[in-house]
Amino acid sequence: MRAVDLIRKKRDSGEHSREEIDFLTSGYTRGEIPDYQMAAWLMAVWIRGLNRSELASLTEAMLYSGEVLDLSRIPGKKVDKHSTGGVGDKTSLILAPIIAAGGLTVPMISGRGLGHTGGTLDKLESIPGFNVNLSLEEFRNVLHDCGLGLIGQTAEIAPADKKIYALRDATSTVENIGLICASIMSKKLAEGIDALVLDVKTGSGAFMKCEEDSVRLAELMVETGKRMGKKVVALITDMNQPLGRMAGHSNEVIECIEVLSGRGPADLRELSLELSAWMFFLGERTKSVDEGRVLAQSLIASGHALERFRHCIRLQGGDDHFVEKPQLLPRARSHLDVLSSASGFISATNCEQFGIALATLGGGREKKEDTIDHAVGLEFHKRIGDRVEKGEPLVTIHYNSGAKLAEAQSLIVASYEIGEVAPSERLPLIRRIIGA
Amino acid sequence: MRAVDLIRKKRDSGEHSREEIDFLTSGYTRGEIPDYQMAAWLMAVWIRGLNRSELASLTEAMLYSGEVLDLSRIPGKKVDKHSTGGVGDKTSLILAPIIAAGGLTVPMISGRGLGHTGGTLDKLESIPGFNVNLSLEEFRNVLHDCGLGLIGQTAEIAPADKKIYALRDATSTVENIGLICASIMSKKLAEGIDALVLDVKTGSGAFMKCEEDSVRLAELMVETGKRMGKKVVALITDMNQPLGRMAGHSNEVIECIEVLSGRGPADLRELSLELSAWMFFLGERTKSVDEGRVLAQSLIASGHALERFRHCIRLQGGDDHFVEKPQLLPRARSHLDVLSSASGFISATNCEQFGIALATLGGGREKKEDTIDHAVGLEFHKRIGDRVEKGEPLVTIHYNSGAKLAEAQSLIVASYEIGEVAPSERLPLIRRIIGA
Repeated sequence: MRAVDLIRKKRDSGEHSREEIDFLTSGYTRGEIPDYQMAAWLMAVWIRGLNRSELASLTEAMLYSGEVLDLSRIPGKKVDKHSTGGVGDKTSLILAPIIAAGGLTVPMISGRGLGHTGGTLDKLESIPGFNVNLSLEEFRNVLHDCGLGLIGQTAEIAPADKKIYALRDATSTVENIGLICASIMSKKLAEGIDALVLDVKTGSGAFMKCEEDSVRLAELMVETGKRMGKKVVALITDMNQPLGRMAGHSNEVIECIEVLSGRGPADLRELSLELSAWMFFLGERTKSVDEGRVLAQSLIASGHALERFRHCIRLQGGDDHFVEKPQLLPRARSHLDVLSSASGFISATNCEQFGIALATLGGGREKKEDTIDHAVGLEFHKRIGDRVEKGEPLVTIHYNSGAKLAEAQSLIVASYEIGEVAPSERLPLIRRIIGA
Repeated sequence: MRAVDLIRKKRDSGEHSREEIDFLTSGYTRGEIPDYQMAAWLMAVWIRGLNRSELASLTEAMLYSGEVLDLSRIPGKKVDKHSTGGVGDKTSLILAPIIAAGGLTVPMISGRGLGHTGGTLDKLESIPGFNVNLSLEEFRNVLHDCGLGLIGQTAEIAPADKKIYALRDATSTVENIGLICASIMSKKLAEGIDALVLDVKTGSGAFMKCEEDSVRLAELMVETGKRMGKKVVALITDMNQPLGRMAGHSNEVIECIEVLSGRGPADLRELSLELSAWMFFLGERTKSVDEGRVLAQSLIASGHALERFRHCIRLQGGDDHFVEKPQLLPRARSHLDVLSSASGFISATNCEQFGIALATLGGGREKKEDTIDHAVGLEFHKRIGDRVEKGEPLVTIHYNSGAKLAEAQSLIVASYEIGEVAPSERLPLIRRIIGA
């Protein structure tokens, strides 16, 4: 078998066998197939696509390029959630403690933020001392002791995905639902989980702007997971405006503590409960999703979920006193209100631009090497459908350096559409459920 | 400007500006853009295509990546011919001496054979001592002294093409008419010529199997050349069977000497005269193509063309005594007749397979690094439309090693289609003329 012939086959819209996909994936991971051949193949795949069977082969080849976590010494079901990312999307830090408090195990291997989206690891690193770089053995110990663990991708987990993703990033072959699906599912299935709930975002702040694309990706991921014997459900959820009131690392951690304390914004509470409910149901902790929702609510009300989070933070080296003293987290030195220039009703937001504004202030990355300012953040005062008066604050910017403040401010102002009449209906937060 | 954005643009069927093409071509040639980004871009180009203006930009960027030969100290017009390649396609060695004998200059920079096609340089190297690796200064001196010179691509000539071609070969992005056109035209225009005659092959022994594809490539090359101020014409010529009676290096050189001596097979004579006629006309040596044909015939008849070839051979270090003593050329030790297994009329040949059979015997390359046996060859006894009797020889194989003889033999047998009735019409050798 020769890589050049397989490139030609995909270029000419041919279908790869499992052996061919294995040859390419393992050859590339071992360094026997050079970057340039993989790059040509990825572009051919991007344009010509992968069918269901090729996709399953690629996902498995990437999954088995590394270690699949052995959690057999931890009793009970292991479940996880994956989100395709957005602005203010912070549910992982809420869900994992709830589910662990409910008796299941959540071995969460997460990523960092890139572009306009935040990443779970970056948020956690705003907690003083919190270590996301555990070895797999340390990770297993944390999971055993508190039922949840939150780490980054290690060298053992899906090395093929790590290498291929870096190449896709440099060759404009990222945004393809087949490649996205294989990348996500290979990493998640390497966690050794029994069930997975997918939060597929849709709207102006998501990678997938239109619902049809989000549904296609969701269906593909659900099918791929089920084909491999896992319970998988995907929720298509709204990302036409930020989730919750806060974006930015410290600010989001604080908002998560609020929800775990029974407070916090309604949309974030709703989505967290819904995702928890599905995790409990798929993890066979409850007989129905409704029961799962009730269980999640009770674990918040009793304080068990928050206590579980504090336990995990301590086990991973973090200082959990910030729960009582938020000033222990990095805080921005200055703030500025962005005022509305018109009176009316918020009819839409270009939500991605909020993420870019945050990155502009130092709270995000353009390139992987960039460092992050955990303190900067955006506080959103209005939601779509809300009435706003001219001169009323839309957003409060929390910033450290004024250097790019004007740029961020104008991105934010331009992101709001304000109309004269209230929108006739509000789009539901949870649009569809795929695979139930 | 960033390569990753330009890859994305072409991936999404966008149109590149001249500056963007320059950025990619010169950046890649200088080593600033890595192989993997160029590979992804080439695959996007292969699938999405290049429009006329992008193609002109790419051709110029590749042309000016190196030196354009300065032949100003040699008086008169400089003309050349380029063929897209086939089996037994040996006209360069006939045309160049004819045109030089007619008073024009032919600065011919040629390639080597790859796959099923032969290359001019390999044929020349079957002449003892002949040196195709002249410096550009030595090349200019040879051109000055005898009006023709025959060398390989030097490091100074279109280095971008050299680097891009090697990458295309490894990434299955060769067979694209835009990329083929840019590659051919950048090299040919670097010869500093005034006019170019293109011999675009069509049929079972050509890269382009169907006439429409050949015409499209021809039109593209003619337009690209004219846009850059050159006189260019393309002849679409038949490659459904070998040109002449001989394939293989020494054998083809001998056949060329026959044509230059006023003998040789009719098809090879016809095509050589026709290409010469167009070269004389475009080089403004004659007022019409018909006059050009008459001039070429007279230069053969007078012996001037052959004498000019011998002069060039001596200037490039070769021993021209093989003209009287063909046994000075490498000769195969053995021969074998491939016999017809049926009586009837030759209705078609799978001509590419003859080239592959020759390569199998050692007379061609699969990879660039392979060495070549100049002595092996195929001698064709029958042409399409000819009557053949069962047991009559179709081809004589001249070989040195019996190792792959059976394989070559069965390729040859399988390449002939023999029918019961004579084909109603013979396809003309010269199908169309583009750009006249």
